[in-house]
Amino acid sequence: MSLETVSEWASFGGTLSVHDHFSNVTNCTMRFGVYTPPQAKDGPVPVLWYLSGLTCTWANVMEKSGIQKYAAEHGLMVVAPDTSPRGNEVPDAEGYDLGHGAGFYLKATQAPWDRHYRMDDYVTVDLQWLFADHFKLADLTRQGITGHSMGGHGAITLHLKNQALYQSCSAFAPIVSPARVPWGQKALEQYLGPLSVAWEAYDATELVKEMQSGANILIDQGGADQFLDEQLDPSMFLLEAANNGQRVTHRMQPGYDHSYYFIASFIADHVAHHAAVLKA
Amino acid sequence: MSLETVSEWASFGGTLSVHDHFSNVTNCTMRFGVYTPPQAKDGPVPVLWYLSGLTCTWANVMEKSGIQKYAAEHGLMVVAPDTSPRGNEVPDAEGYDLGHGAGFYLKATQAPWDRHYRMDDYVTVDLQWLFADHFKLADLTRQGITGHSMGGHGAITLHLKNQALYQSCSAFAPIVSPARVPWGQKALEQYLGPLSVAWEAYDATELVKEMQSGANILIDQGGADQFLDEQLDPSMFLLEAANNGQRVTHRMQPGYDHSYYFIASFIADHVAHHAAVLKA
Repeated sequence: MSLETVSEWASFGGTLSVHDHFSNVTNCTMRFGVYTPPQAKDGPVPVLWYLSGLTCTWANVMEKSGIQKYAAEHGLMVVAPDTSPRGNEVPDAEGYDLGHGAGFYLKATQAPWDRHYRMDDYVTVDLQWLFADHFKLADLTRQGITGHSMGGHGAITLHLKNQALYQSCSAFAPIVSPARVPWGQKALEQYLGPLSVAWEAYDATELVKEMQSGANILIDQGGADQFLDEQLDPSMFLLEAANNGQRVTHRMQPGYDHSYYFIASFIADHVAHHAAVLKA
Repeated sequence: MSLETVSEWASFGGTLSVHDHFSNVTNCTMRFGVYTPPQAKDGPVPVLWYLSGLTCTWANVMEKSGIQKYAAEHGLMVVAPDTSPRGNEVPDAEGYDLGHGAGFYLKATQAPWDRHYRMDDYVTVDLQWLFADHFKLADLTRQGITGHSMGGHGAITLHLKNQALYQSCSAFAPIVSPARVPWGQKALEQYLGPLSVAWEAYDATELVKEMQSGANILIDQGGADQFLDEQLDPSMFLLEAANNGQRVTHRMQPGYDHSYYFIASFIADHVAHHAAVLKA
């Protein structure tokens, strides 16, 4: 598997770089961003994965969240994958919430999506192998995962299903029950077919019922988020987590919306949350 | 003078807001962004003006620099004006370095630019009156000015010509001698006519020779900035500042380029520099 470096910038004493590679999982060329902190000069550092929301690419978090500052303070590498397969050969849809930019971190089983839309294996398998090959300064025994909105759904579900791989988890305004909200219902039906047990594997509220080990998930949610009531309502997820004895710190932040101004305001706490677990 | 609020976001405990107003100086509708820190709840706070570079608007610094975090820590209001007059009625040119997005913080005397391109008076007079009217929590007796590239030129020249108004000054990768470099020569010739004494009023290297009071200007410059040699060479400015006994702290930052990744990496120091003067 070959890797091309597209861009590179100095940032907070470390390096932000952007890379292209062909993925045999998504069957297309994929692009991601990596922030390598200054501490990597001295040896491997823990890795924090950031999964973005609908319409986003690697760039949103790296340009707008300020995450590099805190990654440099704590000595974490940050990886930001894309939110879907892309390219002329990859099926798309008209809405912003299906197709390109809307991969939902799942493995599609329905045509025409099933050939390319495999973002769960892309993140948890393909990129793991690629990092083992090409990023020797990534300590893959210490990894955490976070994300925003659709990416918060991705972070929590991938964490719940891969607890050994991602030892720490947090999220910003996550879609915690896609099976119950319009964004998720539209995507799951298209990618997985009509409502079925298959949806449960991608619904954090279902998955948290089964979680075995002790979770410790930090969630921030803007109180003025325009999507809170219809798409993001956390009540069922919090109830099921509590019923299963799992620790979820859910902070409602009054006045904040769904934007990167919200994420930037609280991302310091998230990086610190991951560092506390990964560097323990 | 009426003021319209276009957008508003919670950010680091304060508020980022975006406003439109008609300016009688530039003869068109102008848009700017303001970050109001949490400390403004307790009374007026000092104001830091951020002037952006070529092609930018209020949004670049507010989305990409992380300045709100440090403004919230130090209790400074931050104002980001646009970089030129805009709109269908405002003359433009094909290049990115003349016309819309390229006002150069001067008062044009040549047609077709002279009716609208008056960004110096817009910033130093028009916005001052508007803030006195509409932003009672801005303490206009304590103001600093900073900026990037063309905006660094704006910050230093407006500071040197209005030392009582802007008591503190800093810049990122400023154009310190527009009369000697291609960007500046193109703009000054179009806006002011052929090379003449008129250019000197907008050239920091000329202005610093005449500075009376004790300057204390912080400048960061990326060592890997793609524009360093041709457009930004600071040597003459530093020489003239030293000849006139003015204190300029010029930090060459190895590996950094001209982007907001560079600005974000060092903006904490700039906000602290202004706070030290304005809150003394």
